[in-house]
Amino acid sequence: MIRMSSSFIRTLREDPSDAEVASHKLLVRAGYIRRSAAGVYTWLPLGLKVMRKVEEIVREEMDAAGGHEVLFSALQPRAPYEASGRWEDYGPLLFRLKDRRGEDYLLAPTHEEMFALAVKDLFSSYKDLPITLYQIQSKYRDEARPRAGLLRVREFVMKDAYSFDVSDEGLDASYAAQREAYQRIFGRLGLETVICQADAGAMGGSRSEEFLHPTPVGEDTFVVSDGGYAANVEAVTTTPPPALSPEQIAALPAAHVEDTPGASTIAALTDFSNEVFPGQGPVAESGEWTRYEMLKHLVYQLTLPDGTTEPLVIAIPGDREVDEKRLEAAVSPATFAAFGPEDFAKHPVLKKGFIGPEGLGLESPSRIRYLVDPRVVPGSRWVAGAGQEDRHVYDLVFGRDFTADGTIEAAEVRDGDPAPDGSGPLRRTRGMEMGHIFQLGRKYAEALDLKVLDENGKQATVTMGSYGIGVTRAVAALAETHHDDKGLVWPRAVAPMDVHVLATGKDAAIFAEAERIASELEARGITVLYDDRPKVSPGVKFKDSELLGIPTSVVIGRGLAEGTVEVRDRASGEVDLVSPQDVLARVEAAVRGA
Amino acid sequence: MIRMSSSFIRTLREDPSDAEVASHKLLVRAGYIRRSAAGVYTWLPLGLKVMRKVEEIVREEMDAAGGHEVLFSALQPRAPYEASGRWEDYGPLLFRLKDRRGEDYLLAPTHEEMFALAVKDLFSSYKDLPITLYQIQSKYRDEARPRAGLLRVREFVMKDAYSFDVSDEGLDASYAAQREAYQRIFGRLGLETVICQADAGAMGGSRSEEFLHPTPVGEDTFVVSDGGYAANVEAVTTTPPPALSPEQIAALPAAHVEDTPGASTIAALTDFSNEVFPGQGPVAESGEWTRYEMLKHLVYQLTLPDGTTEPLVIAIPGDREVDEKRLEAAVSPATFAAFGPEDFAKHPVLKKGFIGPEGLGLESPSRIRYLVDPRVVPGSRWVAGAGQEDRHVYDLVFGRDFTADGTIEAAEVRDGDPAPDGSGPLRRTRGMEMGHIFQLGRKYAEALDLKVLDENGKQATVTMGSYGIGVTRAVAALAETHHDDKGLVWPRAVAPMDVHVLATGKDAAIFAEAERIASELEARGITVLYDDRPKVSPGVKFKDSELLGIPTSVVIGRGLAEGTVEVRDRASGEVDLVSPQDVLARVEAAVRGA
Repeated sequence: MIRMSSSFIRTLREDPSDAEVASHKLLVRAGYIRRSAAGVYTWLPLGLKVMRKVEEIVREEMDAAGGHEVLFSALQPRAPYEASGRWEDYGPLLFRLKDRRGEDYLLAPTHEEMFALAVKDLFSSYKDLPITLYQIQSKYRDEARPRAGLLRVREFVMKDAYSFDVSDEGLDASYAAQREAYQRIFGRLGLETVICQADAGAMGGSRSEEFLHPTPVGEDTFVVSDGGYAANVEAVTTTPPPALSPEQIAALPAAHVEDTPGASTIAALTDFSNEVFPGQGPVAESGEWTRYEMLKHLVYQLTLPDGTTEPLVIAIPGDREVDEKRLEAAVSPATFAAFGPEDFAKHPVLKKGFIGPEGLGLESPSRIRYLVDPRVVPGSRWVAGAGQEDRHVYDLVFGRDFTADGTIEAAEVRDGDPAPDGSGPLRRTRGMEMGHIFQLGRKYAEALDLKVLDENGKQATVTMGSYGIGVTRAVAALAETHHDDKGLVWPRAVAPMDVHVLATGKDAAIFAEAERIASELEARGITVLYDDRPKVSPGVKFKDSELLGIPTSVVIGRGLAEGTVEVRDRASGEVDLVSPQDVLARVEAAVRGA
Repeated sequence: MIRMSSSFIRTLREDPSDAEVASHKLLVRAGYIRRSAAGVYTWLPLGLKVMRKVEEIVREEMDAAGGHEVLFSALQPRAPYEASGRWEDYGPLLFRLKDRRGEDYLLAPTHEEMFALAVKDLFSSYKDLPITLYQIQSKYRDEARPRAGLLRVREFVMKDAYSFDVSDEGLDASYAAQREAYQRIFGRLGLETVICQADAGAMGGSRSEEFLHPTPVGEDTFVVSDGGYAANVEAVTTTPPPALSPEQIAALPAAHVEDTPGASTIAALTDFSNEVFPGQGPVAESGEWTRYEMLKHLVYQLTLPDGTTEPLVIAIPGDREVDEKRLEAAVSPATFAAFGPEDFAKHPVLKKGFIGPEGLGLESPSRIRYLVDPRVVPGSRWVAGAGQEDRHVYDLVFGRDFTADGTIEAAEVRDGDPAPDGSGPLRRTRGMEMGHIFQLGRKYAEALDLKVLDENGKQATVTMGSYGIGVTRAVAALAETHHDDKGLVWPRAVAPMDVHVLATGKDAAIFAEAERIASELEARGITVLYDDRPKVSPGVKFKDSELLGIPTSVVIGRGLAEGTVEVRDRASGEVDLVSPQDVLARVEAAVRGA
């Protein structure tokens, strides 16, 4: 039993000044968490209890799925992360430090390398596999802009699991087992999640899915179709229009350069074209020109993982913007930045405002990498810069008049775009990443030389999966989803305590009866928060109780004289008057039966 | 149930090459832990289970003692530790790092500052106190020489508790409650501990006791008396001989300087004195000279926390050596180093080999700090260097011929020295620090301005205690104490699993029966490690079982045909033959009854 009179529970009347989202405001105000540095939180008693409940649900389902729990230090040496490339690739996200001998260490963001080495250390045969190992532990990432309470932090508790298999089919099975465990975990937590195809990003590997909890405060944008498709925008692939055959291409009009004075923007070029070449555009019947076919060329400065830089030109239909998150994912592990005036000065082939395909490409003398949107298919006709001030090329046909070094998924995804699997138009929505599962494949095992003897006695490289759930983030998501204007409303599975007993009034008999009820509930194995504060008004106690959000409360107050106590349900607000004799059974039914 | 055929348990036949102590060898060989960097270990499945059991015992007793559990990040900002002085004082023991903005952070060695700030944050009145908060969490210390497996590491799990009181009496009560909780914890763990008076060291504060587990592999030396006194050597205070009154001193012979050619060591000076002044020494009847009265003067270079250096001369009876740990504790937070030839050159008053009190002291022109052993009392007579080559002063009386800036506890403590409390002669022994409790007093509260309103409405500085138990170290101590030449022998309270079921042989009926027994034990709430490996010999299974050290094992093998299975007790080695029908009850009695 926690007695509020001698507890470390303190509620606050005011929202923290830096709080933007409900979970941040409420968890701080209700005394569940407390900030200790930017993106670093302290777990106060009730918060810790919620976190442990989430942790225990995750642990039970990991064990049920055949996982073996271990525990690694957050502090790890540089060498394994150097071997995998992550020491570099993680850039400033990684907390790095030196020990007293000057050796490099890091605070692990995840532990792929260490788990691979542990398996390498202890296992040697295909007979030892498959195995799935996991840990629940504090992780560190030096986020550029920690914000929103527990939603974007620099220290967080995570469950990370890793599977090890000899065959691709084995990896599929291990992945499926974790995927099902995740569905059970989020089901038990009462957190709606959508499984989205995801971009594997810096983790490498092939298949990857995110468990996104749909919420307007989510940082991730994802798309869904009515036919059941769901994906992170970074993972959406564009459905290109049909390409033309060489015969069809041959029948198209020849490209021609035109003077386009002042038309250095897509809008200006579209207007100019409709004015000067009316009826010659591609829109059926009207012959109108649209922004779509004004092929937009954008230049970026790429920084490769080894620190070298190079320009990148990408071309996308003129009616779309670049989605920087998609671009980021597409160029990863390289990073991109704006192409500055000095950079343009070094590359005269890039005539700002009038860039076109002419003179671009790794095979061209400029050796500038040139990538196009997937909609730029053979036979597609475009208007593009001619590489000279105030001139554009019309009827520029891809595959006949120009080519590229490849395609790039960098253009924004819009509501109404087709789902890649043909399941209908896409709809954009926002979500919070609750879990992420990856088929890493053999990337880490190769980097760290993790091999076992296969059935034929030959060395076979192991294939891995990695599977994460943000435990502390799940607490935030639960608070985000389960609250009202009065405070938190915990689902029973994760509530810090089962019942909140309140003694309201000054009468000693009230406190004696409340004490009896609280003790007898505890004796039945029900955890009790008991508001025994002697000089606090009923109003304050009710407000605190609503803020704290324990699912059931028992109020012992003035009604006691008439033989009743109140049993309140935090979620529905329902109040039942019951006799002190019946209250134990009534609460027990609520706690166990719900 | 853990099935060994698909587990992450692997025993090793060889001791790790760097292992010196039994706990290190056995925990690695039995697959409980695995090294990931110098002083950084990974907890494998069975090791983690033992650690969690220790953690849970600690948690239960902390809760029973009225503690409130919270959780702080290991990553903390510099400022609070700067305010307390620990950012500097901890020196190279502290892992320091910078974030992407260049701000200083540390990996906390303990959290006094953060707990004080949390209380300051939420509490404001004496009515909020007392409170005791605790956490169980990973701590970091950059030890110079990590060694002995889990005994001296750079990352470890610790329970650290902090008490907050308004009054000194309150602190005494909070301290007593923790002290009792510690006794219960070590009792439940089955770890013998001696409560030793300790030096508070860098933590500051007044009263401090260590819970030392007596063991020859312990790093701490402590002393005990038959009368019940126990103390860390750093904390032992010397019992001085009685001082003489001014009248008695006046009756003593006058000091006289003598030529003592070549007598530059204590041994040489003693021999010289007995040869040249026979019968004039202090030994009753014989008049012999002993090494005791040849007052030994030693010079050290002190480095103060602010980085400045100064010489320190200490004088101790010539029959004792300096104990560097006692000296270290005595000068803390300053540190000491040898006084080199260049240092001597700078201070001509320090005539090497013939240093005496002449010309020393903060009040003297040399301003050299001069401290003496507590046995140097008024009226005590000494022989000391005269500050000149080959000359010594005889009948030098403290309080008449020389004084000092104070006393220092730096001389070694020897077997037979009197206990400070008069409880008899001391005996030196070795131990391992399992817990440490401190009355910090107001040091941290003052540094961090932690005040509450007292009963009179005035600001009162809070007084604190801090209380630590090394959870991972307790696992090592348990392994150190509970093993034999075949392997680990876990006490039941911390055993990773309740029972080890072994199927030995090839007969399918044996495996079927073992499976049934293992499942039925699990159904009764008994945790089972099941050795179901199909092609492993009985000999290997027995060896592994002894190495793993689970208290009870059930062997289903050849005897099954005659209707018996074996129940083995790991500690006693006793083997009972029981029928498969009786085995469940037999094991349950062992698990629950022991």
